[in-house]
Amino acid sequence: MSSKNSSQLERLTFFSDAVFAIAITLLIIEVHVPHVASIDDATYWQALGELRSSLFGFALSFLVIGMLWMAHHRVFGMLADYSQKITWPNLLLLMTVAFMPFATALMSSNPRARVPELVYSGTLLVAGLLQNRLFTVALRAPYVRADVPAEEVTAARWRSWGLPTAATLSLIAAWYAPGWNNFLLVAISFLVRLYAAAGRRYALRVQAAAGA
Amino acid sequence: MSSKNSSQLERLTFFSDAVFAIAITLLIIEVHVPHVASIDDATYWQALGELRSSLFGFALSFLVIGMLWMAHHRVFGMLADYSQKITWPNLLLLMTVAFMPFATALMSSNPRARVPELVYSGTLLVAGLLQNRLFTVALRAPYVRADVPAEEVTAARWRSWGLPTAATLSLIAAWYAPGWNNFLLVAISFLVRLYAAAGRRYALRVQAAAGA
Amino acid sequence: MSSKNSSQLERLTFFSDAVFAIAITLLIIEVHVPHVASIDDATYWQALGELRSSLFGFALSFLVIGMLWMAHHRVFGMLADYSQKITWPNLLLLMTVAFMPFATALMSSNPRARVPELVYSGTLLVAGLLQNRLFTVALRAPYVRADVPAEEVTAARWRSWGLPTAATLSLIAAWYAPGWNNFLLVAISFLVRLYAAAGRRYALRVQAAAGA
Amino acid sequence: MSSKNSSQLERLTFFSDAVFAIAITLLIIEVHVPHVASIDDATYWQALGELRSSLFGFALSFLVIGMLWMAHHRVFGMLADYSQKITWPNLLLLMTVAFMPFATALMSSNPRARVPELVYSGTLLVAGLLQNRLFTVALRAPYVRADVPAEEVTAARWRSWGLPTAATLSLIAAWYAPGWNNFLLVAISFLVRLYAAAGRRYALRVQAAAGA
Repeated sequence: MSSKNSSQLERLTFFSDAVFAIAITLLIIEVHVPHVASIDDATYWQALGELRSSLFGFALSFLVIGMLWMAHHRVFGMLADYSQKITWPNLLLLMTVAFMPFATALMSSNPRARVPELVYSGTLLVAGLLQNRLFTVALRAPYVRADVPAEEVTAARWRSWGLPTAATLSLIAAWYAPGWNNFLLVAISFLVRLYAAAGRRYALRVQAAAGA
Repeated sequence: MSSKNSSQLERLTFFSDAVFAIAITLLIIEVHVPHVASIDDATYWQALGELRSSLFGFALSFLVIGMLWMAHHRVFGMLADYSQKITWPNLLLLMTVAFMPFATALMSSNPRARVPELVYSGTLLVAGLLQNRLFTVALRAPYVRADVPAEEVTAARWRSWGLPTAATLSLIAAWYAPGWNNFLLVAISFLVRLYAAAGRRYALRVQAAAGA
Repeated sequence: MSSKNSSQLERLTFFSDAVFAIAITLLIIEVHVPHVASIDDATYWQALGELRSSLFGFALSFLVIGMLWMAHHRVFGMLADYSQKITWPNLLLLMTVAFMPFATALMSSNPRARVPELVYSGTLLVAGLLQNRLFTVALRAPYVRADVPAEEVTAARWRSWGLPTAATLSLIAAWYAPGWNNFLLVAISFLVRLYAAAGRRYALRVQAAAGA
Repeated sequence: MSSKNSSQLERLTFFSDAVFAIAITLLIIEVHVPHVASIDDATYWQALGELRSSLFGFALSFLVIGMLWMAHHRVFGMLADYSQKITWPNLLLLMTVAFMPFATALMSSNPRARVPELVYSGTLLVAGLLQNRLFTVALRAPYVRADVPAEEVTAARWRSWGLPTAATLSLIAAWYAPGWNNFLLVAISFLVRLYAAAGRRYALRVQAAAGA
């Protein structure tokens, strides 16, 4: 049974990886080659300058999907087996990831408009909450590999609050300063470390208290 | 020979997974970013409102392809080996899956038109029948893993009548209430459980009769 | 060394599978949703009727790429190891496969024009010759699995003349009856069997003569 | 722990392969089917002639991404384990690869314009430097398989200077002869061999000196 389950887990992982990889690569097809009236340097540099919000959107979403994938990679690497209950949260997370090229293109089309920014930050918030839900279900006791320390499991679970926090901040800021709010997303990499460290410390304290 | 066949089965599974993953992710490129005259909130909310049938089509087809993939995942996880005879039904099923982004975009372009709804439900019906054919051929005696109970094999086979049934209902309803007929597709998740339970009960009764 | 090489062969196979799967699924994005003036049934059926060459092109190329993948799958399943010399023929074959969505869309845009048919049949001819070259290099003595009978290796090699033969016939016929020439491609499935059987018979005769 | 890490390395490799495969196959969607006024042969040959820079761009970028993949394949085949430190250089390299379809389409749209050529060569330069950085980090002592000779590790590292060198030459030449500068990229396959041979010779000399 165990080898069957590990191969089924592998296939679920594989399918997820493929969706992440396709969504991350499809981002570029929303960056359109400019039509220029003449081919001199100044015209081209200006045309490329007008693409800056598309290029920024490509880079930002590439990094966000990349981080979502890396977190998925880290957590699924802790699993020995899997619960059928992760299938739906995983599929919904993938749906949000597949939606990202649209949300990115919408945001890039008018970088100072409020609604596209709300949609973009909202998509990240939904992705973050689904990721948190997925990791909570996936990291339950019987499914985690025996050699993974308990505090690392807690850290991985706490860590996944980083994206929802940053997305919420960005969503609120989008209301007041659309376009600029995206810069709050750089906080993700800081927040995930902070939450992971807090979770690890909490778990170790609980373990120490239980041992005492 | 056995390790060779299992690696060939793995590669067939892998290729199928990739097609499922690409088709499911390509759905988003049929949702087009709206061109707006001004960037105020009201204009944008209205523009997004006009996208509702595209967004609904994206979500519906994502779930349908997701369910087709999950069923494929479940059934292929029961196999120890495979018959060359599954190659063609599998390829034709994948062709139908690859066709889904077109059928979805066609349906979403005019959500109240009858013909696009017929094409969409018809595509699901063809997919359902091909899936049923594939599973029937794949789950024949010598290919199933020894540790899979016989009643689970029957359940998996009966289960695959869920999609054709729902698609047929949706196809008929499309004639009378185009657009609304899609809501019949939520019956899929109910029907597959019903058929699976009926198949399991039938198989156990036959086993009991044979044992008596 | 052996386990390293088999894992490298697996990765080459995987990369090839991914390109086949992406090209086969991308075919659908060249089938465009029709813009209709009214949404009544007659208008829609006519609009879909005008798509018939696009839909035919999608189905034809799906089957051709599917057959190329199945042949790749069959031959690579015979290998225990691989020569560095297959890297380039394999990459060029993949380039031709990646080119197929363009060749298909070109052909479908004007199904009675001669040049698009020549380009399409020419692409298949190049793919067939590259496949033949790849299989000839890949199936050399030290790389084939020990449990594969010699006559099956010869059959696999001869078999790969089926596509170049059918593509050549289609290329010649495109000159005289553009559009109709594609029906010659159904000969592929007949020709590959014929060549495979001839190759098997030849190999067995040579073995018998050597044994006598 | 070791089997866990090797499976995590496998998944990172898999994700990378998928991005390479998608980017290389997406190149074709930037080659657009020409709209022709009449379907006679002369009109079509001329229309295809006007596509020559798109087709050239497709072929060139296919080979460049193919070479990047092959180098990735070669180097990752030397690893037994991996450092977390490769995650970011790898993701940034993949971002550059995903950017290639845009850079290619930009260059092909006006093959004699200078800025698109600078962007294209600049993209290759960034890809080359990131690849060099990735291989330098990945090939550090504890992560390389024990059966890989030290001089091959050095050769692989030196080899990765081939693309940055050729891209720099192409970048400079783009300034003076836009369009023609791409022909300098054929030097890549020559330069990588040269650097690899020099690296191998250097490593063997150092080993000999250390042994003496």
